Amino acid sequence: MEERHPGPGQGKLYIVGTGPGDGRHLTEAAREALAAADCLIGYRTYLELLPPELLAESDSREIISSEMMKEVERGRQALELAARGRTVALVSGGDPGIYAMAGLVFELARRGHSQVTIEVVPGIAALNACAARLGAPLMHDFAAISLSDLLTPWEVIEKRLKAAAAADFVTVIYNPKSKRRTWQIEKAREIFLEERKPDTPVGIVTAATRPDEKITLTTIAELGKAEIGMQSTVIIGNSQSYIWHNLLITPRGYGDKYNLAG
Amino acid sequence: MEERHPGPGQGKLYIVGTGPGDGRHLTEAAREALAAADCLIGYRTYLELLPPELLAESDSREIISSEMMKEVERGRQALELAARGRTVALVSGGDPGIYAMAGLVFELARRGHSQVTIEVVPGIAALNACAARLGAPLMHDFAAISLSDLLTPWEVIEKRLKAAAAADFVTVIYNPKSKRRTWQIEKAREIFLEERKPDTPVGIVTAATRPDEKITLTTIAELGKAEIGMQSTVIIGNSQSYIWHNLLITPRGYGDKYNLAG
Repeated sequence: MEERHPGPGQGKLYIVGTGPGDGRHLTEAAREALAAADCLIGYRTYLELLPPELLAESDSREIISSEMMKEVERGRQALELAARGRTVALVSGGDPGIYAMAGLVFELARRGHSQVTIEVVPGIAALNACAARLGAPLMHDFAAISLSDLLTPWEVIEKRLKAAAAADFVTVIYNPKSKRRTWQIEKAREIFLEERKPDTPVGIVTAATRPDEKITLTTIAELGKAEIGMQSTVIIGNSQSYIWHNLLITPRGYGDKYNLAG
Repeated sequence: MEERHPGPGQGKLYIVGTGPGDGRHLTEAAREALAAADCLIGYRTYLELLPPELLAESDSREIISSEMMKEVERGRQALELAARGRTVALVSGGDPGIYAMAGLVFELARRGHSQVTIEVVPGIAALNACAARLGAPLMHDFAAISLSDLLTPWEVIEKRLKAAAAADFVTVIYNPKSKRRTWQIEKAREIFLEERKPDTPVGIVTAATRPDEKITLTTIAELGKAEIGMQSTVIIGNSQSYIWHNLLITPRGYGDKYNLAG
């Protein structure tokens, strides 16, 4: 494959997606990048979810685990080590390309480390993993919206919630709730209630594929009663979505244009 | 992990995502499911992209490759074989959970094979792979919209394009063009031009991660001149997206709320 961001050979930085948690969802490409690196950097929790053989340390191989919320520091450190000629793997849970580390690293590189060769190794994102665990909610057009208003004005988020609700997008809600982020999911519920039937199905997956995984099926009307946390992703069905057994399914289209009766 | 759709043990059907093409993007879980199956069913092109060792046939292991557009037939056959006690892997390119086989199989199972245990094994979808190859376009809220109007009225698609454009979603366009689907991408371009600046960056990835991969960076204004085909995915940036070197980047937020100057 063509190098997408070829620097003059001064080290290499892989931004590696390690998937939702269960090490079985790691790709071969991610495993290769982690094995090739002489320096692994990541948020402690994501590193601890990796298969132990990938975490071996030696004189020539370093593992740097850091705390939550230190993304900028982590990204900068990864770039600096790569600029010194190291082969660095920056570990990102899920897919680094979806609401995660990839963008931040490029933004930092642009400000001072443009000589490092950077490669994004995609991973199974929360939306892929949660959809698989719920059944098949993402069979039709969907929107992904984060409720975190740390870097985005709430008005922008609210506008997107309204647009997604009105245009009948299946909607994947990232960062629905945290200790400080409490009222946003209730506001999202109100917005969807204005556009969709109260019994529209909603799936909530917490800690997808991990030992403490929890899956809840509910409706927009009942969403306020559901347990939602920092590790939860919420998927709101479109007007055609339905529950079958314990699964959330969105049909491929509108109406019965294809004959399934056979 | 909890079984999400436990039948009474009459065979098992894995719906396996094999990623964008390059076998290195296969997950370990997908590889295990393919190896465990005594019957693999898939569209010929996707099967041919698999690592050869997974395609070994024997007296007890069958490979059934079928032609394009036979999804319903393929899904039904997979369910029938599983219902007879076989362990079946239905191979889906990308992620079976995103515009792919998972939903169809559950819809078919609901109509007559509800006794089969079905497990969706997620894969690297086109949107994950194309985002990684382009840089980091999906760092902020995004919408995925298919331009295929085979099963969806064009009015619904157009409404979604307008909503995504107006609410400043990064927009991933699936099925932008085919032999018969020619005017829809031009219509999408017109809709986005009404809401976004003409020089908003657009990335096009064709055959992501395959030997014939092609990546084009352009703008909404120039989109009509770009080569787009059946294997292309188009990603339209939001109002903040920019090109840096040959990469398409969307910042994590609006304004400079976090200090990157360090």
